[in-house]
Amino acid sequence: MAQTVTEKIIAAHLLDGTMNPGENIAIRIDQTLTQDATGTMAYLQFETMGLDRIKTDVSVSYVDHNTLQEDWKNMDDHRYLQSVAAKYGLWFSRPGNGICHQVHLERFGLPGKTLLGSDSHTPTGGGLGMLAIGAGGLDVAVAMGGGAFHLVMPKIIGVRLSGALTRGVSAKDVILEVLRRETVKGGVGAVYEYFGDGAASLSVPQRATITNMGAELGATSSVFPSDSVTREYLEDRGRGDGWIELSADPDAGYDHIIDIDLSRLKPLAAQPHSPDAVAPVADIAGIPVDQVVIGSCTNSSLDDLAAVAEIMKGRTVAPGVSAGIAPGSRTTLLAADKAGILGELIRSGFRILESACGPCIGMGFAPKSGGVSLRTFNRNFKGRSGTADAQLYLVSPETAAAAALTGKISDPALLDFSKPDTREFMLEGLALAADGMLIAPLPPEEAARVAIERGPNIKPCPVPVPIGDGVSLEVILKTGDNVTTDDIMPAGAKVLPLRSNIPEISKFAFARLDENFWKRAQEAGSSIIVGGTNYGQGSSREHAALAPMYLGIKIVLVKSFARIHKANLINYGILPLVFSDPADYGKIRQGDTLALSGIHGFLEGNGSELTVTNTTKNESYRVLLEADTRDRTILRAGGLIPYTGSRGA
Amino acid sequence: MAQTVTEKIIAAHLLDGTMNPGENIAIRIDQTLTQDATGTMAYLQFETMGLDRIKTDVSVSYVDHNTLQEDWKNMDDHRYLQSVAAKYGLWFSRPGNGICHQVHLERFGLPGKTLLGSDSHTPTGGGLGMLAIGAGGLDVAVAMGGGAFHLVMPKIIGVRLSGALTRGVSAKDVILEVLRRETVKGGVGAVYEYFGDGAASLSVPQRATITNMGAELGATSSVFPSDSVTREYLEDRGRGDGWIELSADPDAGYDHIIDIDLSRLKPLAAQPHSPDAVAPVADIAGIPVDQVVIGSCTNSSLDDLAAVAEIMKGRTVAPGVSAGIAPGSRTTLLAADKAGILGELIRSGFRILESACGPCIGMGFAPKSGGVSLRTFNRNFKGRSGTADAQLYLVSPETAAAAALTGKISDPALLDFSKPDTREFMLEGLALAADGMLIAPLPPEEAARVAIERGPNIKPCPVPVPIGDGVSLEVILKTGDNVTTDDIMPAGAKVLPLRSNIPEISKFAFARLDENFWKRAQEAGSSIIVGGTNYGQGSSREHAALAPMYLGIKIVLVKSFARIHKANLINYGILPLVFSDPADYGKIRQGDTLALSGIHGFLEGNGSELTVTNTTKNESYRVLLEADTRDRTILRAGGLIPYTGSRGA
Repeated sequence: MAQTVTEKIIAAHLLDGTMNPGENIAIRIDQTLTQDATGTMAYLQFETMGLDRIKTDVSVSYVDHNTLQEDWKNMDDHRYLQSVAAKYGLWFSRPGNGICHQVHLERFGLPGKTLLGSDSHTPTGGGLGMLAIGAGGLDVAVAMGGGAFHLVMPKIIGVRLSGALTRGVSAKDVILEVLRRETVKGGVGAVYEYFGDGAASLSVPQRATITNMGAELGATSSVFPSDSVTREYLEDRGRGDGWIELSADPDAGYDHIIDIDLSRLKPLAAQPHSPDAVAPVADIAGIPVDQVVIGSCTNSSLDDLAAVAEIMKGRTVAPGVSAGIAPGSRTTLLAADKAGILGELIRSGFRILESACGPCIGMGFAPKSGGVSLRTFNRNFKGRSGTADAQLYLVSPETAAAAALTGKISDPALLDFSKPDTREFMLEGLALAADGMLIAPLPPEEAARVAIERGPNIKPCPVPVPIGDGVSLEVILKTGDNVTTDDIMPAGAKVLPLRSNIPEISKFAFARLDENFWKRAQEAGSSIIVGGTNYGQGSSREHAALAPMYLGIKIVLVKSFARIHKANLINYGILPLVFSDPADYGKIRQGDTLALSGIHGFLEGNGSELTVTNTTKNESYRVLLEADTRDRTILRAGGLIPYTGSRGA
Repeated sequence: MAQTVTEKIIAAHLLDGTMNPGENIAIRIDQTLTQDATGTMAYLQFETMGLDRIKTDVSVSYVDHNTLQEDWKNMDDHRYLQSVAAKYGLWFSRPGNGICHQVHLERFGLPGKTLLGSDSHTPTGGGLGMLAIGAGGLDVAVAMGGGAFHLVMPKIIGVRLSGALTRGVSAKDVILEVLRRETVKGGVGAVYEYFGDGAASLSVPQRATITNMGAELGATSSVFPSDSVTREYLEDRGRGDGWIELSADPDAGYDHIIDIDLSRLKPLAAQPHSPDAVAPVADIAGIPVDQVVIGSCTNSSLDDLAAVAEIMKGRTVAPGVSAGIAPGSRTTLLAADKAGILGELIRSGFRILESACGPCIGMGFAPKSGGVSLRTFNRNFKGRSGTADAQLYLVSPETAAAAALTGKISDPALLDFSKPDTREFMLEGLALAADGMLIAPLPPEEAARVAIERGPNIKPCPVPVPIGDGVSLEVILKTGDNVTTDDIMPAGAKVLPLRSNIPEISKFAFARLDENFWKRAQEAGSSIIVGGTNYGQGSSREHAALAPMYLGIKIVLVKSFARIHKANLINYGILPLVFSDPADYGKIRQGDTLALSGIHGFLEGNGSELTVTNTTKNESYRVLLEADTRDRTILRAGGLIPYTGSRGA
């Protein structure tokens, strides 16, 4: 049967399920990546699996988010990550080496492979013809342990590109055009697959700009074919032997096809405050600009910097504009230095920021209050810059440079400049960057001797204990309806820095509902929570399951669950039970003791209902577990981590 | 009479007083500089003087402290400063252009001139043979308005340098040696004046490293002669016509003389947690190092970077070390780029931070908890790095580089390297940096049209209203003894960002003693505070006088004052009165009304005591004002700002 690129890669990695859009499938993961903000918990979870070494082809731990280092916590995290990488056979990309997606593209990406990353812009790798998907830290930990990645089989949306880009129009304008047509919800449950002669005309960095920002469509991923352009890119980087040709079969079926003629595209901008609020730059030209920033995993390739340097050549940043560049990687920075691009940017008045995510994730370079900032980034949500009332526009490097020069939004298609050929400088940069900042995995015997470096804020991820066959538990909390994950585990400046410290963060569990919860749960040892309808609605945060698990919650018994939180409870080994008769909810009081027996057999499929005895009141209730075989096995094992560990061993 | 360099400069600028050490004198100020952290309030104060234009030869507004920009407040400050500079005839150095002291040395410093700067490391300019002094923002505002700078005539300590530095030993080791001998209190009330053939052998950047860190001696300033080395430095920078020869007369008298033989100096390090805890590097060699940072106003010249690049040449930063460089200025950065130094540093694994104060003032790059960090900076106080338990060592660039290479404290004198000649690259850097980031003063007619850009956190500095001849004031607060300026105006993360917003920060005045103080004072309009002994002890912060002034406090009547706070009260037009009979303190209650008359005549010198009538109790007390003629005139004018404005007009 004729297949798309996506289907070919999935078929080659399929472990479970059938490839019908909307159905659950499981695939094998070849490569993983993490960044430091999500990586710390991912590796704490991996540590609890009890494995000696990762089981993927390649796993890389990057540091690119928390690089400002305002106190000790950032560098403590960096050191923890470095020591974990050494211990378990990962590559480690040191702070200053660049943004995970850029470095991964330059150093590790391969067509036909699967990549799972704990960052939403992981689909950048699709520019090389790989299936690259963003996921939660636990999913990545499980993949590193050799476990499958479970997802819904996506539908495939074709994007047929024809023609070639004209001067002043760039890859950023292609993805902005897709966002304009498809909106930020257009990609839910889908992979965008690019093809056509227009696709063939784009370089790998251009393709990566497009697949990167496919995340803003809500898509599972985006992917380009692997062709001669891909081969040359890989050969230049010493990975030519990893190249395979990969394209959709001529009669492959797409959910639907979008046609874009590159030669007719104009420079575009996503206006405040959404990536799909797209308008032609020409229509908004003249708006005064306070700030310009080039960088992020979307637009910080050498060609991007080269275009900016060409536009600035011999001229200076307008007095009213503060301009900055955060190069995507140290390789790019070194190549830009050799090419004279870096010198020209500094001379023209650009501030050189570190090779990291930086301003794109609100780490510095916040605009003035109410300021207009043109950014080559991928997100312009209100407040993301650090300035709530700033007006953020997402644009190409060319459009950003034109504004830096003139002090207002200006159409770069009207400027006279040509892009230089940067290939030889990139080769020099790659050679120079070879040493020092990207640390290779240690051989197993050396790795075994590595001691994990754990700063005071980094505590081991607690290991769930599988529930006993029979339990007798105090009702430690009885909640009403619509409890949110914010109620269960608040966010905010006070709590977020404790994300690698479950013992500490657990003190805030349910604090909104009952500030003594933490103390009472600790004293009880093991306990049960009883709740109403829609329990666990809101954010998908894993800590809303992790903290209760740490505090000894064995069962949550409610009228109904919110979907994602229920999945998280299962992942952390907490039984998500529902009342057969919702009226029984009213019969239970906080402080009652509930006893259950025959739990193991029930999890193994014996019977559809279980009896709960309220020993305080001498009453019984019938309860249900709505879960498939895999979920029941995970619960029997005590959660996804021990489940993966036991299967991997 | 034979004179030192210091005495010659002071004599040429003396406006009042006699040049006997310990006596009050007043001098004319030729140049001023501010940085953004102190500059905002200085310019708010300058604005209230009602002048059209600064009256100094050169005044420069730099941005180098708050460059991380985590929210809108930083860039709002930058824009305010830029617009004020344009309005009042100042130079403006944009964020990214470098550290004030480095840029000022490169662009503006001149031998024989006086420089007043609102930063404690202003004495850097002494490397060029100028008398450069750090002061409060209000002092600088007054100097910009043409007012004199009042100081105590310093004693002059001679430092006779002989011989020449050997390989691996640098200017930093000279000042560390002085600190070892003199301690951090050795320079109180003194200027350190360097001379001898050893002094003549040092470059201007080397001299500036030494005078810069003279601040850590507690000195008023430090100064080198102006000689042929100075002339060449200035000629290279297009300021040759500003050069004058300047050296001490052969028989000039010093308080005492320190002798240092440069050829016998070894690499030194200031150990945790004081700049004078100095030890030979050889004695502490082998200590594992976690972090290395090159930069700050002390050690970030092109020669400093060149030495590091030479040591790193072809090698890489040790895996256990996180290394960073924050070049002192954009000129240096451009010169380093042209010389290949920047490329070599990036290649070897250094992270390139912005040209700004950065880690030296705890703005990012904090070490890990308990980490050992070698820094080429000037201060290693506990917690200054952002990590309370970090171990900070102050070292030369050579010592820092040796540690980056080996991963432990290492003696650079044992390394084989030679310093390249960087002069031609510096000339290139200077030419390239000429445009864009350093904005020249506008001509008066253009300046008049500039509108000040005032973000929501920047409020005009309130103008004090001179006290009436007769007043009747409610006792709005009665305090006990030993009230601190922390009690009057707290610091901390909640309050500090409001320093340019007197209306907002005033809400915290006396909040520790009475959280309704702010409300009651506002309602009262004008009022008086009654206090005990040692009122206003602690930090010298001006806001402890500014906020009460804003809230209508006209008089503070106490048993006794702490010296600096009393001076601040006078500067802000609040009468600091003391009881003739301290026993009267006990007779007054909060809420009483106190009436005074004949205040103007009293300030003009009529009578030594004034009568205060308690109209609530029908009692009278006698009170004193311990102040000289200038202070009384300032009080009559309503404070130092109106006083300066009226004299300048």
